Amino acid sequence: MAVNPTMIKIDYKRELESASKGMIMIHDPKLLIKLIVRMIVRKLRIKHAAMILYESDNNRYVLNISRGEAGHRIPVGFTKFSTDSPLIKLFVEKQFKPLIEGRNAIVMDDINRIIWRENVVDNSTGGDIKELLHKVNQQMDSLNSIACVPAFYQDDLMAVLLLGQKHDETKFDQEELNFFAALASDAAMAIRNAQLFNDLSREAKRNRELFIQTILVLSSTIEAKDTYTHGHTERVTNYSVAIARQMVANGSAEFDKDFFENIYISGLLHDIGKIAVPEKILNKTGRLTDEEYEIMKGHTLKGADMVRPLNLPQECVDGIRYHHERFDGAGYPDGLTGAEIPITAAIMAVADAYDAMTSSRPYRKGLDKEVAMREIKKNAGTQFNPLPVQAMIELYNQGRV
Amino acid sequence: MAVNPTMIKIDYKRELESASKGMIMIHDPKLLIKLIVRMIVRKLRIKHAAMILYESDNNRYVLNISRGEAGHRIPVGFTKFSTDSPLIKLFVEKQFKPLIEGRNAIVMDDINRIIWRENVVDNSTGGDIKELLHKVNQQMDSLNSIACVPAFYQDDLMAVLLLGQKHDETKFDQEELNFFAALASDAAMAIRNAQLFNDLSREAKRNRELFIQTILVLSSTIEAKDTYTHGHTERVTNYSVAIARQMVANGSAEFDKDFFENIYISGLLHDIGKIAVPEKILNKTGRLTDEEYEIMKGHTLKGADMVRPLNLPQECVDGIRYHHERFDGAGYPDGLTGAEIPITAAIMAVADAYDAMTSSRPYRKGLDKEVAMREIKKNAGTQFNPLPVQAMIELYNQGRV
Repeated sequence: MAVNPTMIKIDYKRELESASKGMIMIHDPKLLIKLIVRMIVRKLRIKHAAMILYESDNNRYVLNISRGEAGHRIPVGFTKFSTDSPLIKLFVEKQFKPLIEGRNAIVMDDINRIIWRENVVDNSTGGDIKELLHKVNQQMDSLNSIACVPAFYQDDLMAVLLLGQKHDETKFDQEELNFFAALASDAAMAIRNAQLFNDLSREAKRNRELFIQTILVLSSTIEAKDTYTHGHTERVTNYSVAIARQMVANGSAEFDKDFFENIYISGLLHDIGKIAVPEKILNKTGRLTDEEYEIMKGHTLKGADMVRPLNLPQECVDGIRYHHERFDGAGYPDGLTGAEIPITAAIMAVADAYDAMTSSRPYRKGLDKEVAMREIKKNAGTQFNPLPVQAMIELYNQGRV
Repeated sequence: MAVNPTMIKIDYKRELESASKGMIMIHDPKLLIKLIVRMIVRKLRIKHAAMILYESDNNRYVLNISRGEAGHRIPVGFTKFSTDSPLIKLFVEKQFKPLIEGRNAIVMDDINRIIWRENVVDNSTGGDIKELLHKVNQQMDSLNSIACVPAFYQDDLMAVLLLGQKHDETKFDQEELNFFAALASDAAMAIRNAQLFNDLSREAKRNRELFIQTILVLSSTIEAKDTYTHGHTERVTNYSVAIARQMVANGSAEFDKDFFENIYISGLLHDIGKIAVPEKILNKTGRLTDEEYEIMKGHTLKGADMVRPLNLPQECVDGIRYHHERFDGAGYPDGLTGAEIPITAAIMAVADAYDAMTSSRPYRKGLDKEVAMREIKKNAGTQFNPLPVQAMIELYNQGRV
């Protein structure tokens, strides 16, 4: 088939450039090399292409993508290369640097030419080189490849592109190899960028996990002291998030992602101030004296105070401070009414009351859910904001609380 | 001066390509555009170049870099553009899209041509367009620019490259403008990448801050209950880190970055188990009964237990569990001896003892530092590992504790 060679080259170039273009926005190295290999096989006149990617966790290279004609493809995930593998050694070990320096790629024909040329044994490692090249030759053969293009980021071999024969079975010319090398170089940088991204992303997640778990340890500590409230913190948090979701679902509120984040944190921290309440008050089974009750009520303000160094969003602090306010203004600490009570707190008040009623305590069994729900419904508009109550009723009717 | 134009073009291309190359590894957008503008002015035949960068915090564009001949440069940081600024409107507002579509850049000559062409008033917004272009013209003039190249990432205008006249005062040809556009496009992607990076990095830092602050809240809570230990947690943490640093400085140990991270966390958490010790034991001024002492000692195991859900590195947990072990094996909870005691714990034992001795308590004044140091020195090899003791002595002699 006669094709204008210039046309093909321009196509090469444009395709490769447009492939490189979006690379850095892909933060999954495996996906990245898949897209590259697919593009190469789809757009260029090659029977087969594959790419092996370095896995730092295992210090090895794994063939992650192989595309092309049946019978040319290599089983993916199965083919692994240790850093002792000839193909990897050739690119990575210092003693072989002179061999690959100035080359964009290792091409089968070159290898054969070097193996049979006498003067390669000029230096003391000549024997090693011939032996290694023989092995590389065999490896490339078993991978159906006639050229390998290393993808370096600085001195790190991030990946290797394996290229099968062209459809017309001609050799790759220098311009083609240059393009593959440019592509590999862009890919290496994109892979590095993705790695940095993933590392940072993992760190952010890990730190958040530490934060959340520390709060949970803290709340379980409160619960360990307050023998009545085992698991209370987590249940109130879950109910609160569920009520908020339901309020969005039934159209009574519009909450953004931050709101859910904040009510979650607020739920976990809502009783943190109890840590400052003396154990003898926290664990008293009889009726609290007025003075004791005042100290107990202080956990809302104390809690809001304790989290000040965290610089949490206002919504989080509101939930901690105001979850004992009542819709009719008879609550504490500030006696706010109706819409004055931040919605985080209004939601948590319903969740808190429901859990308090349905949980068993040493001196009394918890109420049936149905009875508790009736109680909550009855107090909508007096104790509770009617909107979260309505959402709670819907959750109950759907069997979700 | 006669220069082979082909040579210049190749130079352009290579310089621009190599500039684009490392862009994505620069995660500071301001530095990034500085490098681009410097390179343009140094390598290419342009009297002046500048770049304005979008600041999302303030929703405005700021001129961050201006390079070139004296008299052509623009004061940096001073020149700010709101999104209402003509130059910005031209690139961002929908109604002007037809004007810039298909153009890589806005060139002064084009603007003049459009302004004086009748058919631009064909549509209803024609008047607006002419008026806007007049203003853009004036703006570019005041910025010493004859061409503006927008840097878009998707639909977001990330930056605008402003180009002054060429040294030979010829117009930019299409190929030159194409290169600038390619450079701007790469820059836009790199800026976006940097933004994502910075956002993630900020998130990781913020989450870590939340974690650390939550631990501090937790330890201050313990201290609030245990009236003797105000500020103890933070002091022990600081002493521990200082001792570890000094051990590296005097060559008695090699600790990596992770170690310092871990001993810091461990120090903050070392007494967390005290939260489970009843207040009446924690606050008892008289001598503890054997039974009470056993409960008190339990804070080491309890603490290690409490932090289990955090999945902290072993070094952190070791410090919590073993900071009351003694070098001679007479400590608790496990009676480990010498090198069996993890070094985190051995360091913290010295820090803990020093702070316990030097802090004042309601029923006795703290010891003089000198007396405390003598006591610690005396117990090196019996109570304490001699290496952290030696480091502590050095810190004391340097007046650092």
